[in-house]
Order: sequence, then C-alpha cells, then structure tokens
Amino acid sequence: MSRARLEAFSDGVIAVAITLLALDLTIPDPTHGELLTQLGNHWPQFAAYAVSFFTIGIIWVNHHARVSQIAVVDRTLLFINLVLLLFVVLIPFATATMATYLTSSSEDAHIAMALYAVVLEGMAVSFTAMFEWSLGTGRSLVTVPIDQRHAARLRTSIGTIVYAVVFVVAFISAPISLAIAGATAIYYVLAPVPRGAAGVELEKLDSARSDTGGNA
Amino acid sequence: MSRARLEAFSDGVIAVAITLLALDLTIPDPTHGELLTQLGNHWPQFAAYAVSFFTIGIIWVNHHARVSQIAVVDRTLLFINLVLLLFVVLIPFATATMATYLTSSSEDAHIAMALYAVVLEGMAVSFTAMFEWSLGTGRSLVTVPIDQRHAARLRTSIGTIVYAVVFVVAFISAPISLAIAGATAIYYVLAPVPRGAAGVELEKLDSARSDTGGNA
Amino acid sequence: MSRARLEAFSDGVIAVAITLLALDLTIPDPTHGELLTQLGNHWPQFAAYAVSFFTIGIIWVNHHARVSQIAVVDRTLLFINLVLLLFVVLIPFATATMATYLTSSSEDAHIAMALYAVVLEGMAVSFTAMFEWSLGTGRSLVTVPIDQRHAARLRTSIGTIVYAVVFVVAFISAPISLAIAGATAIYYVLAPVPRGAAGVELEKLDSARSDTGGNA
Amino acid sequence: MSRARLEAFSDGVIAVAITLLALDLTIPDPTHGELLTQLGNHWPQFAAYAVSFFTIGIIWVNHHARVSQIAVVDRTLLFINLVLLLFVVLIPFATATMATYLTSSSEDAHIAMALYAVVLEGMAVSFTAMFEWSLGTGRSLVTVPIDQRHAARLRTSIGTIVYAVVFVVAFISAPISLAIAGATAIYYVLAPVPRGAAGVELEKLDSARSDTGGNA
Repeated sequence: MSRARLEAFSDGVIAVAITLLALDLTIPDPTHGELLTQLGNHWPQFAAYAVSFFTIGIIWVNHHARVSQIAVVDRTLLFINLVLLLFVVLIPFATATMATYLTSSSEDAHIAMALYAVVLEGMAVSFTAMFEWSLGTGRSLVTVPIDQRHAARLRTSIGTIVYAVVFVVAFISAPISLAIAGATAIYYVLAPVPRGAAGVELEKLDSARSDTGGNA
Repeated sequence: MSRARLEAFSDGVIAVAITLLALDLTIPDPTHGELLTQLGNHWPQFAAYAVSFFTIGIIWVNHHARVSQIAVVDRTLLFINLVLLLFVVLIPFATATMATYLTSSSEDAHIAMALYAVVLEGMAVSFTAMFEWSLGTGRSLVTVPIDQRHAARLRTSIGTIVYAVVFVVAFISAPISLAIAGATAIYYVLAPVPRGAAGVELEKLDSARSDTGGNA
Repeated sequence: MSRARLEAFSDGVIAVAITLLALDLTIPDPTHGELLTQLGNHWPQFAAYAVSFFTIGIIWVNHHARVSQIAVVDRTLLFINLVLLLFVVLIPFATATMATYLTSSSEDAHIAMALYAVVLEGMAVSFTAMFEWSLGTGRSLVTVPIDQRHAARLRTSIGTIVYAVVFVVAFISAPISLAIAGATAIYYVLAPVPRGAAGVELEKLDSARSDTGGNA
Repeated sequence: MSRARLEAFSDGVIAVAITLLALDLTIPDPTHGELLTQLGNHWPQFAAYAVSFFTIGIIWVNHHARVSQIAVVDRTLLFINLVLLLFVVLIPFATATMATYLTSSSEDAHIAMALYAVVLEGMAVSFTAMFEWSLGTGRSLVTVPIDQRHAARLRTSIGTIVYAVVFVVAFISAPISLAIAGATAIYYVLAPVPRGAAGVELEKLDSARSDTGGNA
C-alpha cells in the first residue's frame, strides 16, 4: 500500500461524505405552506450543514497534512485510517439527526446533539491515534524532536478536548453546543499554524511550493 | 497542502455534486397516470437538471484554470475554496427546490428561483474572491500586469453580475430567469477565451500540450 | 485544461454514476410479504442494474481509450465531454424508470424502455462526436490514416446503431430490448479489439505495458 | 487501458460505495418515540454498517495490492474487475436489507443474511478470479513460483470459504453469521501478512517506501 493510494482513497471518501451532507437539505413540499416560511423553519438544517461542511473540510486539511508526512504504511495505520473514515462517513447521518431534533423542546434535542458530539469525538480520537502512530521510529519523513512532542501532542489532541466540551454543553443547550462546534471548525480553517514543532509539517509543504519563503 | 491535492479534492466534490443532480429526477409512479404525460409534467426537473449540469461544468473548468495557476496554498485560499465548494454542494438542493416550484402560479415560483440565484451568486462571489487572492504577490505562477487587471477582473466577475440579473428577473418570471442562467452556462462552455490578459492562463495550458501552437 | 484533469473529472463522474445505480435496488419492507417472493418480484431491478452497470463500464473503458489519445483540449471537446457526461449521469434515472415499468402490461413498458434507449443513444452520439472531433489535424497523438477512417468511424458509431435498434425493439418487447442492450455491453467488454486502424489506440496502450507484445 | 487508470476508477467506485453505506442509517422521526430508544432499536443498522465498512475496506486494501502487481491490462481483467465492482456496489443494498430483517423472528432473517453472504461471496469469487488471471505468464510484475502457488491460492481464496460459512450459518442464526463476517473483516485489516509467497506483493510495496526495511 503506497501513501499516495491511501491519500487518494481517503480523499475520495471525504469528498463523497462532504457532498452527501446536502442530501439532508429537505425540499419543502408545496402543500406544506409558503416557501419562505418553510425555508425559515429549516434553519437548523442549514446551520448544521454549514458546521459539518467546515468540520469535514478541516479534517480533510489535517488528514492530508498528517498523511503527507508518513514514510511507511503498515496494517495498524490502515486500520486507524479506516476507523477515522468510518466516523467521517457517519457525520452526514449524525448531522441529519441533530438538525431534526435541534429545536425540539424535549430531552431529545440534548441526546441528538450529544450523538453528533460523539461522532466528532470518534473522529478526533482516531486522528490523535494516527498522530501517535506517526511518532514511531521511521514512520514519518520528518521526526518531531522528543522535547517538542508534548506541544505537538497538545495541538493535535485539541479536537478531542473541544468535542468533549461540545458533548457536555449539548446537555445544557443544543444550539450553543452547535455554535461551539462551528466556531471551532472555522477557527481551524483560518487560524495561522503556530511556529515550531507542532506546525512544522504543514508549513513545510506550503513553503516548498512558494516563492515567498516560509511566511506563506 | 499541495496544489494537486487541492485540485483533486475539489474535483471530487464537484464530480459528486454534478452527479447528485440526477437524484432529483423523480421516477413517476405507475399509479400516477401515463408515463409520457408524467414525463411531460416533469419538464422543469429536466430543464433544471440541464442548466445546473452545465453551470457546475463551467465552474469546474474555471476552477481548474484558476487553481492550476496558483503557486502557493495558504489558509486563506483553503477557506475561500471551502466556501466555494459549500455553494457548489448546495446546487443540487437549490435545483430541486427551484424545479419543484418553477411552474407554480404562486409567489413561491419567484422565491424558489431567487434562492437558486442566491446559491449561484454565492458560488460566483467565492470564485471572484479566489481570483482577487491570486493577484497577491507570489501567489500565481503567471502574474497579470497591473494595467491589465481591470479587464481580467471584469471577466472573472461577470458571473456575479449575471447571477444578480438572474436574481432580479426571478421576481418577474422564473422560467425566463432559468433560461438566462442556462444560456450563460452554455455560452461560457463554448465561448472562445478572448486574447490578452484575462484569458492568458487557459490558453497557455491548452497550447502547452498542443502541436498546433497557440490557436487551439 | 490538461488531458489528465479531463480524465480524472470524467472518471469521477462515471464512478459516482455507476455506484448510484444501486440506489434503485429497493429494500423490500417486512410488511410487504415474504422476502424471497419480494426479491423475485424485483428481478427487473436486478436485471436493469446489471445491464446498466456493464453499459457504463464499457463507456468508461472506451472514454478512457479515446481521451488518452488526445493531444489538445479545447472548448469544443470540453462541451462534447460535458454532454456525454450529462447522458451518463441520466443512466441511473433511466434505469430506475425502465425497471419500474419493465413488466407493466400497459403501453408504458414500451415508453420506459424507449426512454432508456434514448439516454444510451445520447451517450453514444456524444461519444461519436468526440471521435469525429479527434480526427481534426493535431488533435490526436496518433493520426488515423485517411483511408482507414471509414472503418474506424464504423466501429465507433456501432453504439449509435445498436441503441437505435434497442429503441425500435422497445416498442415490440421491452424485456427483449433490454436483453439486446445487455448482450451488447458484455460483448464489448469481452470482444477482442480487431487489428487495424479502428483498434490501434487501445492495443497500443495495452501492449505498452505488456511483456508479451501486441497480442495482449 | 493503463493500470493506474484501472486503480483510480476502482478506488472511486469503492470510495462511493463505502460512503453510501451510511445512507441506510435512518434518521428516526420525532413522532416515533424517544430518540435513545429509537437509536437502540436500530442497533442492527449500526452493526451492519460497521461490518460492511470494514469488509469494503479490506477489499480495497486487497484490490490495490493485487492490481499494483499487474503488468498488463487486457479485456479479461477489465471484465473480472467490473464483475468485482458490481458486487462491491451491491453491498450497501445487501447491508440495508440484512439490517432491516436481522432481528426479525421469521424465516426472512435467515434469507436476508444469506443474501448478504451471497453478495460477499460473489465479491470474493471475483477477487479469486482476478488472482488466477494474474498467474498467467507475463501478467504480473512479480511471478509467484510454481511450488508456492498452492499456498498463495489458499490465502487468496480464504474469503470464498469464509463467506460460504457465513452463508450456511445464516440459516442457523443471522446475528452469529454477521458476527463471523465482522470478525473476518477486522482480522484481515489487522493480521500481519505471513512471510513467503502468499504475502510477497503486499510487503514489497510497504517496504519499498520504508526506511526500516522489510519488517514494516
């Protein structure tokens, strides 16, 4: 199994999953009232779509940055990667369920949002496992020095902490919980990668093709 | 993040979105009358399918031409590209809604067509943002000279003007509005790229692989 | 626009379309009778799935063989290719409709099968147009000699003739019409490419990677 | 037809099929009872999703390992590969049907599980046919010595034996049958490839990119 093949397959699965998110945007039936009113009533579907779209988007960016650093593909990595993709493919389902119940006044709004958080947590934990695997000798093209591993680990595992918070807040307020997940996704797309060990791999890739040096 | 990876992922999302358009072509149920009559009644679905298919097709062509000129991928570009894809993935939903309401005699026909125009406008604005980003120093392989930027800008932003017109006309006549969107898509696929700054990147790509010089 | 990009995008669309075929394989509901009986009643869905699967499969093979010979990508080719894909993406819809009506005793069985034939004919005509385009000076890597073009043309346009026959037979017997379409697809996957001008490009590709010479 | 093209197309189809598995994860309707109860009642859907996800995952890994060894693509291989993909694309349908009937007390639970086993068996037989084809002179980059073919054959055909067992057990207990299929998939992802002829191709690929030699 080559790294390129692993990337191509993972990219394919992620691209299909991100596009399937739109299947839950239900087309209001003409007999159910005015279109504008119906579109307004479906705001949880649109909000959930946007949050999940950027969440999958950032996972794609991070997954690529991680895999592009890998020197060798073994069975353990294949297994971790399949588990990661299993959770990514669950996101459209979790998004649809969460959107359906988001504005429910019953306990189910909390359960649905918590389910969504569990799926994102599963994805984040799988990604952290992939990072831990890559620290093994000879597995990465660029070795993270021992003394910088703590910072690198912290940064990679931020997702697991954030989605745990999303899970807890789900039982207080489902919409606020969704807003936290959304803010996290957009922050990660926009945030500059910090200097140092944690961000070394992504910047290197960028600057390798840049005429402007390492400030890209 | 390499340019090739950005292209491959975007192509994957666009390919899935263009294929999902056909999911809205509903299969008439045998109990709902003669098949020919039913197919005839579904003409808005087929017209909407054709228009959206070519619209996504031209976005794919333009997206590729733009990205193939990019020298460096940074966080801002990733974000703009995700927003562009977010609108592309919304097209099957907007197409289905528009087709359902296109022949409605109520105000909803206008609303549905306007919603379609808004999604296309979002796509066009994202694409223009990507173009503006690419004008930054060191971001493109081929630099557009300052004095030719106005023409290049005009050509790139034509989509944003056209879809604004489609939006306005939606409130006069939804079918005419759809016809304008369709004519625009087919015009862009077929239209020769004009000589000069605006079209330089697409022709260069074509002629690079051509034995017949720059007249391809 | 490079040839590689055109291939990758077309492959993506064709891969999604061939997979969407399975969405029409309806899951019988437990309340509708015994599963074996239900599966038996759904034989048109399974037959239609198999025929369409191999039909799209052979189009993928032929499309690749043709595009791999192309030296230059211009706007006309992009347009022809989009029209070809438009018909490919319609195949899951046409397959589902045809399967629903195949065993109907009414006139609709003929109409549904004819609709299926029309979509396949549209695909075949688009493919022939792509071939004709490729005969232009400087457009192909390997030029078909003038005196061999008639044979090459005949072979390429066989699909347009076959699907016209499928269309006509649809009005006599829908199942026989489907059988002809299915036999054609399997024949084309298995049939050895004849020696000479018509088949030159596919064999060259095969043998280029073969240790066994041109007899692959 | 090049090997790379065959791989890319097959990867595309497999990636879409594995993602479509999640479409069967039905979103419980708010009017059907408490969400937690409903999610609990849908455990067969989640179990079936996990089993099929890893089953398709391992087929992807094995397919890639096999195809990467191929020296020449002929019509027979294209046909075998299309038949293999035809069964892969059927997996979401077979999974959905099996999950719907898994906990049924009627005979249908056995029939649905047997149908699932038949689809997996069809996939395994196609894969074995691809292996047998690759043993022909000049068809593979690395030749398996005659005296090691028996072991290689045995390993490749294990799938056909396992799914025959899954088929038989389906008529005793559908859930136990599913558990066997699931255990098989996870075993194959994790199991180290044995030394010697049978596993030579996969290890070579791994070690080719590894700095740590053949112990990857």
